[in-house]
Amino acid sequence: MPELRQSMVTKEWVIIATERAQRPDAFVMPDAPGAHLPAFEPGCPFCPGNEEPELEVMRAPRGAGPWALRVVRNKFPALSPEGEKVRVYDGVHRYMTGVGHHEVIVETRRHDTGPALQTVEEVRATLEAFQTRGRAFVEDPRVEHVIYFKNHGARAGTSLVHPHGQVIGLPMVPHQMRVRSDEARRYFDDTGSCVLCRVRDDELEARERLVAESEGFVAFVPYAAFSPFHLWILPKRHRASFLGTSKAELEDLGVLLRDVLRRLHYGLNDPDYNYVVRSAPVHEPAFDYMHWYVAIVPRVTQVAGFELGSGMFINTALPEESAAFLRDVEVPPDSVV
Amino acid sequence: MPELRQSMVTKEWVIIATERAQRPDAFVMPDAPGAHLPAFEPGCPFCPGNEEPELEVMRAPRGAGPWALRVVRNKFPALSPEGEKVRVYDGVHRYMTGVGHHEVIVETRRHDTGPALQTVEEVRATLEAFQTRGRAFVEDPRVEHVIYFKNHGARAGTSLVHPHGQVIGLPMVPHQMRVRSDEARRYFDDTGSCVLCRVRDDELEARERLVAESEGFVAFVPYAAFSPFHLWILPKRHRASFLGTSKAELEDLGVLLRDVLRRLHYGLNDPDYNYVVRSAPVHEPAFDYMHWYVAIVPRVTQVAGFELGSGMFINTALPEESAAFLRDVEVPPDSVV
Repeated sequence: MPELRQSMVTKEWVIIATERAQRPDAFVMPDAPGAHLPAFEPGCPFCPGNEEPELEVMRAPRGAGPWALRVVRNKFPALSPEGEKVRVYDGVHRYMTGVGHHEVIVETRRHDTGPALQTVEEVRATLEAFQTRGRAFVEDPRVEHVIYFKNHGARAGTSLVHPHGQVIGLPMVPHQMRVRSDEARRYFDDTGSCVLCRVRDDELEARERLVAESEGFVAFVPYAAFSPFHLWILPKRHRASFLGTSKAELEDLGVLLRDVLRRLHYGLNDPDYNYVVRSAPVHEPAFDYMHWYVAIVPRVTQVAGFELGSGMFINTALPEESAAFLRDVEVPPDSVV
Repeated sequence: MPELRQSMVTKEWVIIATERAQRPDAFVMPDAPGAHLPAFEPGCPFCPGNEEPELEVMRAPRGAGPWALRVVRNKFPALSPEGEKVRVYDGVHRYMTGVGHHEVIVETRRHDTGPALQTVEEVRATLEAFQTRGRAFVEDPRVEHVIYFKNHGARAGTSLVHPHGQVIGLPMVPHQMRVRSDEARRYFDDTGSCVLCRVRDDELEARERLVAESEGFVAFVPYAAFSPFHLWILPKRHRASFLGTSKAELEDLGVLLRDVLRRLHYGLNDPDYNYVVRSAPVHEPAFDYMHWYVAIVPRVTQVAGFELGSGMFINTALPEESAAFLRDVEVPPDSVV
């Protein structure tokens, strides 16, 4: 019998399709897409030698080269940093000028790598750059919400393979955020608890969907995971905004995030994935009922008409099996990259 | 300057990325994927000779063969038609037995076709089969919502290329449906008008996003289209449920749907797409503020981290340009298939 599970966070139902369930190893990529890349690619705009003017730069701690990480403006930005924020509503169309920020974090000099193959320092540096740019964005009074994300691989929507993250500062709060926030507040008012604190407690107790854990964070496959190996990394400590996270906590997160991405890399043969930091809106950094987290979505399945027509998902992998698979992945010991 | 547009129907904002905007012909597929298929494929479970027991069958009106369209159970159903509907909530997990219906409409005997290449009779027959099965599903007291959809091509999530639609009868109403319904009711209470009736009037007056029109339906690119060539076909007459549509109206819709899909096929070289019928929940068939429609989503772009992290979309095509392109497509005259 298939099973329907509702996420208390998104409130969306997911069909866990046991009749069409696939074993976790059915999702292993036949060929690791990143394995054939050169270390440097002369035509790549993010490779050394092709640098555009940067907004931020981090130098390598041990002098590995002139720069280790760079933040640049997106050459084809989704939003423009110049201009006035104007909203118009005529009863049927609502329009706003597309002001905001869209920046790119070039994570490393190397063309052929990714967080799973990077050092802990590199992964942490990306998270720190997210935070630095997010903090700069919220100084802009036009910005109401910030999205931090990374696309790894073509199926995850990236056209440039050189490892990079992106930060977008929006002039409004997405409706989906509002809907989730309303639901989280309702849960808080009903129970006195932040829904994600409740989820964290439950996952830490049940342990069947747990993948890895650190002092301050827990990584697990959510109960109502919408796709195979869908993962959340939750800070154990309640906090609405990613921007309030300390340097020590970011370091802790960097270690865990890299660990989880290594499990995906070695377990599923370098699958494409997105990860995103979901944080509270800029002007709601301390709300009791919001809790920031990292969501990781390996792109091992394709969204179809049912999902488009309902907002629901059909997951052909049991969340508990996905988690057990990732717990058991044999990750090779660290080597110098 | 990029532009943000909010859909009054979904309430979601879309970034119309003028800085990275692509001309409509940038989305033309390099190679029509369907052009290399055989008319019959011995290994295809939907081709003649491999028929499983059917639930419904339609015969060809002019004796073109033993069957023209068949409805079968999905061999790997997302939901099970047997079993009791049980809901459990323990404060953090909400669970329901996966009861419901999942059926497949084999649209035609031919393996190598699709609505754009089918006759008007075939397209209409699929719509009629959707309605027939939907009417059967709502007789089941466990069913609360029905989704009707078609996946065309691998990027649209189909694994079987033989033309087929699907109908899923859900034991609950998707959260996204509830959210949209709440917003539509609010709009109705504020203005006295169904939001989709208002949109219909506006599109018929402005005409800049119109693609095609029939006596009872209008096809257009929505103002806040979330991707290039995203299309809606709206019944001109207010009605909440697809199930109340008359045979004559379905015939009219069949002609227009086929016309629009032919424009996509010939204009973009057989792109993959999904179409879905969005109708009111089963027990809300006559609500003043709900209005059924058909959404068509050509899969010419890839969803990435920003979309996953915000629920918003970045559209790199101007809706008005997408519409003008589709209006101007030269569709060859009908030939006998």
